[in-house]
Amino acid sequence: MEFIQQTFSVDYSFKVFFTRYLFNPANAEFRNYLVSQTTPGLTKKLLFIVDDGVAKAHPALATEITTYLQQIEGFKLAGEIEIVPGGESCKNDQELFYHLVDLADTLAIDRHSFVVAIGGGAVLDMVGMVAAVSHRGVRHIRIPTTVLSQNDSGVGVKNGINYKGKKNFLGTFAPPAAVFNDAHFLTTLPARDWLSGISEAVKVALIKDASFFEWLEENATALVNNDLAVMQELVYRCAALHMAHIGGSGDPFESGSSRPLDFGHWSAHKLEQLTDFALRHGEAVSIGIAVDSVYSSLLGWISTESAERIVNLLVKLQLPVYHPLLEMKDGKPSPVVKGLQEFREHLGGRLTICLLKAIGVGAEVHVIDEMLLNEAVQHLKVNHASI
Amino acid sequence: MEFIQQTFSVDYSFKVFFTRYLFNPANAEFRNYLVSQTTPGLTKKLLFIVDDGVAKAHPALATEITTYLQQIEGFKLAGEIEIVPGGESCKNDQELFYHLVDLADTLAIDRHSFVVAIGGGAVLDMVGMVAAVSHRGVRHIRIPTTVLSQNDSGVGVKNGINYKGKKNFLGTFAPPAAVFNDAHFLTTLPARDWLSGISEAVKVALIKDASFFEWLEENATALVNNDLAVMQELVYRCAALHMAHIGGSGDPFESGSSRPLDFGHWSAHKLEQLTDFALRHGEAVSIGIAVDSVYSSLLGWISTESAERIVNLLVKLQLPVYHPLLEMKDGKPSPVVKGLQEFREHLGGRLTICLLKAIGVGAEVHVIDEMLLNEAVQHLKVNHASI
Ligand SMILES: NC(=O)c1ccc[n+]([C@@H]2O[C@H](COP(=O)([O-])OP(=O)(O)OC[C@H]3O[C@@H](n4cnc5c(N)ncnc54)[C@H](O)[C@@H]3O)[C@@H](O)[C@H]2O)c1
Ligand SMILES: NC(=O)c1ccc[n+]([C@@H]2O[C@H](COP(=O)([O-])OP(=O)(O)OC[C@H]3O[C@@H](n4cnc5c(N)ncnc54)[C@H](O)[C@@H]3O)[C@@H](O)[C@H]2O)c1
Ligand SMILES: [Zn+2]
Ligand SMILES: [Zn+2]
Repeated sequence: MEFIQQTFSVDYSFKVFFTRYLFNPANAEFRNYLVSQTTPGLTKKLLFIVDDGVAKAHPALATEITTYLQQIEGFKLAGEIEIVPGGESCKNDQELFYHLVDLADTLAIDRHSFVVAIGGGAVLDMVGMVAAVSHRGVRHIRIPTTVLSQNDSGVGVKNGINYKGKKNFLGTFAPPAAVFNDAHFLTTLPARDWLSGISEAVKVALIKDASFFEWLEENATALVNNDLAVMQELVYRCAALHMAHIGGSGDPFESGSSRPLDFGHWSAHKLEQLTDFALRHGEAVSIGIAVDSVYSSLLGWISTESAERIVNLLVKLQLPVYHPLLEMKDGKPSPVVKGLQEFREHLGGRLTICLLKAIGVGAEVHVIDEMLLNEAVQHLKVNHASI
Repeated sequence: MEFIQQTFSVDYSFKVFFTRYLFNPANAEFRNYLVSQTTPGLTKKLLFIVDDGVAKAHPALATEITTYLQQIEGFKLAGEIEIVPGGESCKNDQELFYHLVDLADTLAIDRHSFVVAIGGGAVLDMVGMVAAVSHRGVRHIRIPTTVLSQNDSGVGVKNGINYKGKKNFLGTFAPPAAVFNDAHFLTTLPARDWLSGISEAVKVALIKDASFFEWLEENATALVNNDLAVMQELVYRCAALHMAHIGGSGDPFESGSSRPLDFGHWSAHKLEQLTDFALRHGEAVSIGIAVDSVYSSLLGWISTESAERIVNLLVKLQLPVYHPLLEMKDGKPSPVVKGLQEFREHLGGRLTICLLKAIGVGAEVHVIDEMLLNEAVQHLKVNHASI
């Protein structure tokens, strides 16, 4: 038996910047970053792709970017700033995907150039995939513009597009070159998007950081009242927890089955799909957190009081904690629970789901008791369904 | 200026096995590998995708695979063994790509399953891309069946498909789970494919290992005479050199511009494209090696004798060393040299090309003198064009 063993490791490193008014000429963050990336004698290209929700809410943005870049040597815009439809639909749009691949081709975007995406999690996921597969990966800068993308999706290492309605069926793990979280973008978010991104903070607090959970309880009213300074702190702490997990887990590219950051997500993914994405990701996650928290208490892992605290926080944050699709129908498993079976298959027969041992402490199970789950759903329906 | 620094590294490890009659029940290699990958209580799926050139030359293969797998617990075939068209055209076929993505979806191939590709470099590149982007990467086993794929492409870390005629425009870096080089497959190769894969061995010998180059000179006749034992040694040594470079370069995913393994390739890629892939990759590389070797001698980097030794070896291996597309026309740069300009643009303005300092020693340049290049072409035309 002859073989050659191949072994190597690949180092990844990137910074996530927290700033405000990124393209104000007085703000040096983006300029300093680009300057750090110059190569003497070369002019590098920047292809900007902007979420149309952002473009509409910030009509001066394209001009600001163009003006900002004029002061920086060694870089130039590749073509026009490209505006793409924002929201989940862009991840279903194969034509749009190939239109952007075409742009990368015709504008000669190469492995020295940068594809810069400005937008919500959906646009970042889609553009991230374009950047990851063009020329086997061109440099990609993310400028997340929603709470969810600034505190979770945009600071991580995954991209993805949907395929035949299957969420994120196509994607890669591809760390960005840099991420710029500009708090100013958050001020133009519709209320739904402002609030729904908070559920990822509740999630990561519940599995990692009890004091952050308490902070969320204390600041829930301020958050609901659009306090930007409080939201900035939330984004920073939540991003830091996500990044610490990814960087410190020993499995940044998820080769194992353990996914603590997916607490509350097994039902969320199914709910998003079953509602045809009428539910925002963050709203679905809020429902998923509520279900899995009450289920954890029914298992005896956390107290009833803890479960109530969690649900009450979500309710205070004006996030949903129940959905009719969770319910059994005529004694048959609910459509969402069918999703659990699919998920089990998806994992190759062995389920791994994160639940709570305490507020701030996640733990995994490999079996879900469907009767107990139904009890959790009933509890939420009876006590909180009006929300 | 606030930022969070993310840093982590990802470890990769895989074995390349050298064997013969892989699916003979008496051969334990593949079985042992699978057994090492079992998880108690799980049945893992194997989706086999086979190059039709291989399927035709080995009509019993599908039955052999099915029988072989019956003795192994914890694994099962996912669906039927899928036969796909071999050769470059499969990398241009977007419909085929999505057909395989569909299979991965409908057969519920998950991150515990394996996509097994059996075929030449083109099929491996295409299936590798399918595996790399489905579910953000499912396990992928490569069974290369050509000289080129066993000694070079199949043991590396790249996949790719063509986009609008642009070679490998879409792809990723994605190390395989394991590679099985079965020498028996080589016995059914058309003469062209048997020979053309040897040029990658000449290439890697020239930049890395003078004694391997001498070995190739000594064994050229045996290789031309279809000596399988000699070919097996060639494949092993060549694969080992490629793997050592990738694993030891410090840049396995090519984030820098230095690509010594692409010696002879700048013109090869352009020739393949300009001839609409009538030239095999290995044939184009042979021409590219000849041009860049003579050019190296005209630069004074290697002796004229060394350049002649190299060209003579290629000629003895019945590989082409000249193509009319290399020539200037009416005083204008040849179409291939225009490719050099494109390549310079592609690299963002700074050319990095590997040439020879000696047989066994590569070195980089950042400028190519087009007049000197034309001289090299003329030399090959006048002295070797009849081949
Ligand atoms: N890659 C990951 O690790 C990861 C993690 C979690 C979620 N996600 C994905 O993120 C997506 C959800 O992202 P999201 O919650 O950011 O929503 P979104 O991207 O769907 O955007 C929601 C809406 O807000 C608009 N918008 C964005 N920024 C705005 C701004 N500053 N002002 C006004 N309008 C603005 C968009 O145009 C869109 O209409 C989902 O596709 C989800 O799967 C990815
Ligand atoms: N990923 C990489 O790092 C890398 C490196 C070098 C080359 N490549 C790619 O590899 C491809 C070329 O691969 P190739 O030279 O193996 O040729 P190929 O895959 O194009 O196959 C050539 C022909 O041989 C047939 N064939 C394959 N195995 C056979 C067998 N055992 N018996 C009979 N017929 C057989 C195929 O059906 C096809 O018709 C190109 O697309 C090139 O870009 C990739
Ligand atoms: Zn989420
Ligand atoms: Zn090659």
